Parts: sequence; structure tokens; C-alpha cells
Amino acid sequence: MRKIKIAIIGWGNVGRFCKQAVENAPDVELSGVVRRLQSVDKDKDELKGVCVVTDIDALKDIDVAVVSVPSREAPGKVKEIISKGIPTVDSFDVHDHIQAVKKDLHPLAIQYKTVSIFGAGWDPGTDSAIRTILRLISPDGQTTTTFGGTKGGRSMGHTAAVKAIDGVKNAVSLTLPNGAGCHKRKVYIELMPGADFEKIKNQICQDPYFVHDDTSVTAVEDISLFDTMNHGGELERLTRNIRQAYSVEGINPMMTANVLIASARAAYRAKQNAQYGAFTFIERPLIDFLPGSFEERLKGY
Amino acid sequence: MRKIKIAIIGWGNVGRFCKQAVENAPDVELSGVVRRLQSVDKDKDELKGVCVVTDIDALKDIDVAVVSVPSREAPGKVKEIISKGIPTVDSFDVHDHIQAVKKDLHPLAIQYKTVSIFGAGWDPGTDSAIRTILRLISPDGQTTTTFGGTKGGRSMGHTAAVKAIDGVKNAVSLTLPNGAGCHKRKVYIELMPGADFEKIKNQICQDPYFVHDDTSVTAVEDISLFDTMNHGGELERLTRNIRQAYSVEGINPMMTANVLIASARAAYRAKQNAQYGAFTFIERPLIDFLPGSFEERLKGY
Repeated sequence: MRKIKIAIIGWGNVGRFCKQAVENAPDVELSGVVRRLQSVDKDKDELKGVCVVTDIDALKDIDVAVVSVPSREAPGKVKEIISKGIPTVDSFDVHDHIQAVKKDLHPLAIQYKTVSIFGAGWDPGTDSAIRTILRLISPDGQTTTTFGGTKGGRSMGHTAAVKAIDGVKNAVSLTLPNGAGCHKRKVYIELMPGADFEKIKNQICQDPYFVHDDTSVTAVEDISLFDTMNHGGELERLTRNIRQAYSVEGINPMMTANVLIASARAAYRAKQNAQYGAFTFIERPLIDFLPGSFEERLKGY
Repeated sequence: MRKIKIAIIGWGNVGRFCKQAVENAPDVELSGVVRRLQSVDKDKDELKGVCVVTDIDALKDIDVAVVSVPSREAPGKVKEIISKGIPTVDSFDVHDHIQAVKKDLHPLAIQYKTVSIFGAGWDPGTDSAIRTILRLISPDGQTTTTFGGTKGGRSMGHTAAVKAIDGVKNAVSLTLPNGAGCHKRKVYIELMPGADFEKIKNQICQDPYFVHDDTSVTAVEDISLFDTMNHGGELERLTRNIRQAYSVEGINPMMTANVLIASARAAYRAKQNAQYGAFTFIERPLIDFLPGSFEERLKGY
């Protein structure tokens, strides 16, 4: 069986776990990693034997590019890659911008006869699929989504948004469940010398990522004491007659990477079937995200 | 907006709840009910104002037929209806026969340029979709499905299978969770005069519906004392790094009916897009099962 050839774009936490997910999957293989800088010494070991380049054009025969750059850079990077006709997947996570991204990417993907599956991490992504299922079993209910797992978790999107602010040396944004679909956010930052804490704090609190939530910002000496890779979500929909609940908890970038590699399969199959366009996770058939023959994928139905 | 015209085939528990689901949905309307016998007196009130016929040909302009006959009769009935070019949905629930039904129905649906979505209740159906999602987030785990909700529930498929046995006047089959994906089944039967209890008991225990489970069969005077409409399922997938759980519990035929009416929407849209064939629930995009415009369906993504 010919394996699906994957390029990983961006070498952060998600990129690293994507490499692991590719190695664990029976039907995909890694063609290379695209980074802003050539492999630096500290990553030598983990990238041993991997083709590392700074431009995707340097890689040959890519079936799907897994775009694991910071969320806000993802749509731009995706446009660049689908304009070469290469399918992409990403875990773009700004819920309010999903419709705008769809409008932006869809015609472009059709024009270049390729496929993009975007917003395809665990939330948005698989959680969005669960929310859709909850809605169709209980049309008259209301779904609450509570993030943070049992003890609070590290939001990758929020963390990356804070890290991008001028004067921030390092940061972590934790999400704590606050009941009935509400959240507290606890942001810890290490400051650059001379940075203005109050200014940075205001910038964080006014950011669309944080503006809806009860957010506290604390300057610390060493963020590693406050950090965790764990995260999770709980989805509930209760009516008088039907109650449903779903929970997921685990290593945040590992869950994201697993969904991305599954989405790479779905993107590859969509392109094979000439179903061009940019799609959210819920616009593609679930069976396309699994490895194996049709019969194998239907097992356990 | 033109509403999707639905025919309900079969007037049992699921058929009744389908009528309710249609009435609660903004985008579908009931064209009529097809029954083996003309409306009898006891159903006069609940079928008031509804066109009741014995043959689907007597109904005009059907967009989708919701086949809510006993599960084992469903594939035969579906073949008959899709051979007229009319799309169908059903909640056929014999897990082991899903692949065979696919092979049987798919070419026929293509031949008649129509669509069938089968095995589309809550299990198989939405639970199958959840199992697929669990697999793709945690490729290396093992999923257990435990039925019965918190206190045990009424399996419609199993109950119908027992009722179909000669000598059985009335029956109910309850499913009780027995830990780690195992179940006990408690079957209560009212016997016809002169029926052979031991023979019926053996027939039940050897039936594919029951053969894998710890089954007890008890003859009773009045099964209504043992009956319930409630049922549920719990799906779990645990690995060292990621844990996921989903549970659903409620009125069994109501949950089935809601999924069927959602599937009718997906079948209608598939036919509109000339995507002919017979499909399980996981072969169609989830977004197609929701009512409303594309933008409305993407809300809450």
C-alpha cells in the first residue's frame, strides 16, 4: 500500500507530536519538516534522519502539508501552500473567525484543485463534531462546553497569543473550568527587561482570545513552575428526556496532532475524489479520517 | 423555504416519535404514514389529520421515507422503496450485518439514482460516529461500549426480535450493564396459550441478538410491570495519555426518531447533490444532518 506523504510545517509542540503520530500510523509517512530556521543544534537528535528545510518547495511529492504554526498565522500559511495545489490541514482555533476563514480559503482551494481541512484540532475540530451529534439527538437542548479537564489545562492557542506580545519573554495560559460553560484564565508571563507589565496585561485582557473570560495575569520569574501539557473539555446537553455528556482529557498537543494526522488522511481522500475546497472537520465524512480499507474502517460500527 | 416531505413507514414506537420529531423540526413536514392496516380505532386520535395509507404509492411527492418497521424487516422494505427512486433512512441495528447490508443496498441505490442512509439510530448510528471520533483522537486505545444507562434499559431491536417468535404474545428485553463492555439481558415474555416455554427460551438464547450475552428469560403474566422506554449507552476509550468518555441516556424511541429525522435531511441533501448510494451514518458529513443554512449549521463550531 502506498503511504500518504506528510510534510510538517512548524516545529513547535504540535509539530513534534505530529511526527510521533505519523510514526504510529500505518498509512502515512514523513517526507520532511519545514521550519523558519535550519535545524539548530538543540533539535538535532529529535530530527535525526528527517529532511529539514526552510521552504516547502524543497520537498518533493508531498501529499498533505500539516500546518502546525501558531493559530493566527495558519490561514496565511495555508493560502500560500494551497496556491501550490498541495492539500493542507490545520487546527486554527479562533471560533469566531471560522466562517470568515471558510469564505477566504474555499474558493482558493477550488481554484487550485486542492483541499484544505481547517479548524481540525480537538476544539474546534472533534469537539465540534461531538457538539453537532449532541444537537441532532436533542434538537431542543442547549450545549455547554467547559474547558480545563478536572484540574485546569494549558490552552495552546491562548499561550501562543500571549507569547506573541512585545515584551513577553515566555508565557503560559491556563484554562480553569468555572461552571456552566464559563472559564477562568490564569496567565503567567516572564517579562523582557524593561517591559511594561500593566500595558501587557491590558493588551492580554482586550485580546479576542481573553475578552469574554475572567482573566488574571501574573508576572513570574520562571513559568515552568506553572506549566502543564494537560488539557481537556467537557460537553453536556441536558433536556427533560435525553441527557448526553462527552469528556476528553490528555496531552493537549498530542490530541491535536492525532486529529491533524487523521485529517490529513481525509484531505488526501477528498483530493483523490476531486472534492476540492476548504472544509471544517464536520463537512467531511467521519469514515474518511480512519486508516485502513473501507471494510476495516466500518468495523465496530 | 420548501420543507422536506417525509413519509413514516411503520407505526410502532419509533414511528410515533418520528411524527413528534417532524413536528418539532423547522425544515421537514409529514406527508403521510404507511401502515400494514388502515388506521384502526385506537390510533384515531394520534393520527388525526394525517394521511394514512397501506401503500407508499398512494402518497405523492415524498422526499424521504423513514422506515421504522422492525429492524430485520428494514432492509427488505428499504429495497422496495429505493427501487421506486425514493430516498430512505432506517435504524437497522444488527451490527454484524452492516457490511452485508451495504453491499446489498449500495448498487441498488445507485441504479435508481437515490440515497439510503441505514443503521442510523443512536446505536448503531450516532454512537458509531462517536466511536469513530474516539478512535481518531486515540489511535492506540480500545473502546468499550456499555448499554443500559444507569439502571438498565429497553432494547428495541432485541424486544422486537423476541416478539417475532411464534408463541410469544408480548415481550420486553432489558439490557443491563455488566462491566467493561459486557451486558446481561433480561427477557420477560407473556406466552400464547399452549406455547412451549423451554423451546421459546432456547430459540431466544440462540438468536444472534442474544447469543453473545448472559441472557435470562422469564415468563410473566403482565410484561408492563417490567417495561421501560428508557435506554442508554456509555462509550469509553482510555489510554495512558488520553481518556475519553461519552454517555447518552433517555427515551429510546425518541432518540432513535430524532436521529432518523436528522438522517432524512442528510439523505435529501445527498440526493440533491447527486451523491447516490447506500451509506452508514459515518459516511455522510455531519453538517448535513443539521437544519438551517450553511452558516447556521456552522454556528457553535
